[in-house]
Amino acid sequence: MTKTPKGLRLHIGIFGKRNAGKSSILNALTKQQVSIVSDQAGTTTDPVEKPMELLPLGPVLFIDTAGIDDEGALGALRIEKSRRVMDRLDIALIVIEGEKWDHFEDLLLGEFRKRETPVIIVINKTDLYGREFSELFAKLEEKKLPYVLVSAKEESGILELKQRLLKSVPADFVNEQEIIGDIVRDGETAILVVPIDKEAPKGRLILPQVQTIRNILDSDACCMVVKERELAAALEMLKTPPKIVVTDSQAFLKVAADTPDDILMTSFSVLFARKQGDLLEMVRGTLAIDDLKSGDKILIAEACTHHPIAEDIGRVKIPRWLTQYTGAKLTFEHIQGHDFPPDLSSYSLVIHCGACMTNRREVLSRIMTCKAAAVPITNYGLTIAYSLGIFERALRPFDFAYDYWRNRNRGQKD
Amino acid sequence: MTKTPKGLRLHIGIFGKRNAGKSSILNALTKQQVSIVSDQAGTTTDPVEKPMELLPLGPVLFIDTAGIDDEGALGALRIEKSRRVMDRLDIALIVIEGEKWDHFEDLLLGEFRKRETPVIIVINKTDLYGREFSELFAKLEEKKLPYVLVSAKEESGILELKQRLLKSVPADFVNEQEIIGDIVRDGETAILVVPIDKEAPKGRLILPQVQTIRNILDSDACCMVVKERELAAALEMLKTPPKIVVTDSQAFLKVAADTPDDILMTSFSVLFARKQGDLLEMVRGTLAIDDLKSGDKILIAEACTHHPIAEDIGRVKIPRWLTQYTGAKLTFEHIQGHDFPPDLSSYSLVIHCGACMTNRREVLSRIMTCKAAAVPITNYGLTIAYSLGIFERALRPFDFAYDYWRNRNRGQKD
Repeated sequence: MTKTPKGLRLHIGIFGKRNAGKSSILNALTKQQVSIVSDQAGTTTDPVEKPMELLPLGPVLFIDTAGIDDEGALGALRIEKSRRVMDRLDIALIVIEGEKWDHFEDLLLGEFRKRETPVIIVINKTDLYGREFSELFAKLEEKKLPYVLVSAKEESGILELKQRLLKSVPADFVNEQEIIGDIVRDGETAILVVPIDKEAPKGRLILPQVQTIRNILDSDACCMVVKERELAAALEMLKTPPKIVVTDSQAFLKVAADTPDDILMTSFSVLFARKQGDLLEMVRGTLAIDDLKSGDKILIAEACTHHPIAEDIGRVKIPRWLTQYTGAKLTFEHIQGHDFPPDLSSYSLVIHCGACMTNRREVLSRIMTCKAAAVPITNYGLTIAYSLGIFERALRPFDFAYDYWRNRNRGQKD
Repeated sequence: MTKTPKGLRLHIGIFGKRNAGKSSILNALTKQQVSIVSDQAGTTTDPVEKPMELLPLGPVLFIDTAGIDDEGALGALRIEKSRRVMDRLDIALIVIEGEKWDHFEDLLLGEFRKRETPVIIVINKTDLYGREFSELFAKLEEKKLPYVLVSAKEESGILELKQRLLKSVPADFVNEQEIIGDIVRDGETAILVVPIDKEAPKGRLILPQVQTIRNILDSDACCMVVKERELAAALEMLKTPPKIVVTDSQAFLKVAADTPDDILMTSFSVLFARKQGDLLEMVRGTLAIDDLKSGDKILIAEACTHHPIAEDIGRVKIPRWLTQYTGAKLTFEHIQGHDFPPDLSSYSLVIHCGACMTNRREVLSRIMTCKAAAVPITNYGLTIAYSLGIFERALRPFDFAYDYWRNRNRGQKD
């Protein structure tokens, strides 16, 4: 986290009158987070900056602009400083107590409209004021302003606020993670292993394979594409070994066997757990496989409804591998498409597909829902790697996830 | 042509009463064709087989089943033989004189319906009987039978018959040409050069590139994908040189310079002239560039309406290169989409796009239309290669086209 420069973090400003509860909202948001790096005290006139990892959204910088409804000379200075904050925001939260919207909020809104900054209205203190503000709701809906009802004190509405934040995050921030271009650099080579079985689309490749090739080219690197049967010959053919071999999860064991141990190896599905979701969160989720016991229910979630290969993996292979690995009598339930159950409390684990046909925003939203319900979530590729005993190797290309796994293992052995 | 086994040829049966004009239809179809390999005389009871190259449809076997409306014992034997012919047909032509459809044609039709063989009704001798057969037309339309009005004697309607044949050809025959799998074999390597410019689709590759990768994998070969800047390094990296380097036409000159002369080199566009059209016909068409003179009008035809890269090539680069090469003042007209002008007589040349987003049937249909109008047709990649002086090299991977070009050049020099 310390590696993320301030400028690359998502900047979220928190605005509102004094006593609207801005700080308590911020505290509720940051609760359960990995850490708050800096909690520097601002002067009374300075906005307070709080860089943090808002999981699974990534690194954000909250800027708390307390009390700009002050009167007098000090107030004018604060307003000036707040204006400068506005200029660098990605999202603005306007926090109000109950329905207390007046000319001050109109003024703020005007500033954000001028700057085309996405705004979320946080209606706080529902514990005191209730949740029925039909006049305010009508006004916000007319202005097309998204709003969330929150009680920071009771910590209700916090998941909804996070989901709403995720929806408002500019696409650049959500999609900035490269597929593989940060692993394979200028002049290096990656080998992609693409099995051609009856599930492969006629005369083509599937989208994540094409996207990975493109990302390698964008990185000024060379990309070799082979079937699993040709991998050994391809490795033999190169004067310099490739930086990494990436395989379809289904060929994991053969590819692991054919790739010398000093060459990185992983699967498309692990690359896309990072690209399209949150790898660390899913690594944590994968470890919950060890806690599974007979009678546990597992939700297998597929983002699209039409991919024939997914059915085979999700309905047959993963249940079989998991049952073999755990030795437990497990129950599997399947969902497809955009419906993710709001109540996950009956599940011990969620296993998501590679999510190649959905977007990162949707996967992050599902991870948030799982986190809020304290249900671990993983994906197909990680589950397969774990069941087959090649989890550590598949994580090695990803420092942060590999370190997490190694530290945890060390912790368990001590 | 002698290389095509009889079983791989498209089998077209010609049926009809004696004197309907079956033989003259066959002669009219085969006029202007490269050659009729065999014109073996059949016995009076045997169907006559005529293997030939029906350009640009490919190798076909016409089976002429003369006179099965005969009476008597000889007629019964003929009917038996004709039935056996029916069992192996891909398309059946029923030839009738004018509107002379009776129970005999109904009988034939019943046999083809049983076998689910596509049928085309050829209404012959319009020179004698005219073209107004409203009762027959209504009957054929009710039965959903396609029909063509022909005068074999006057050679009218022959193009329409060929176009109709093309429409009825089973997809397997039209699309059987591999992209590159017959050039790159088991254990060999192909390098694909994919420039990433601002026209490249975001985060992906274009379809012909993906299809080419897939075809290489299907051929049990290795595929290396690089940008043009990395080609030299990729060639250096391989212990054994690749069989072929394929580039986007736009990087032709740099790739030709970086690829040693003993390695095959061509472009995606030339591969797709063969896959999606007829390479030999387009090579012939390309040579017409040398005959262009000031005042000539050229039709640039793009199959799709939305590809931004195509506009740049078709509207700017190709006109510029052609003008530079010929030194003539040429006029260019552009069409996009599925509308191909029926009257091509005012054009000296048709230059077609790579046709990656259309199908071979449509391109062959356009080639037929051009041939009938005696207007040469070529495509973008061949035109670029010719203008840049690397035509011979780009054809070398394709024996038949290369031989044609070499023989023609030798002929000119003699």
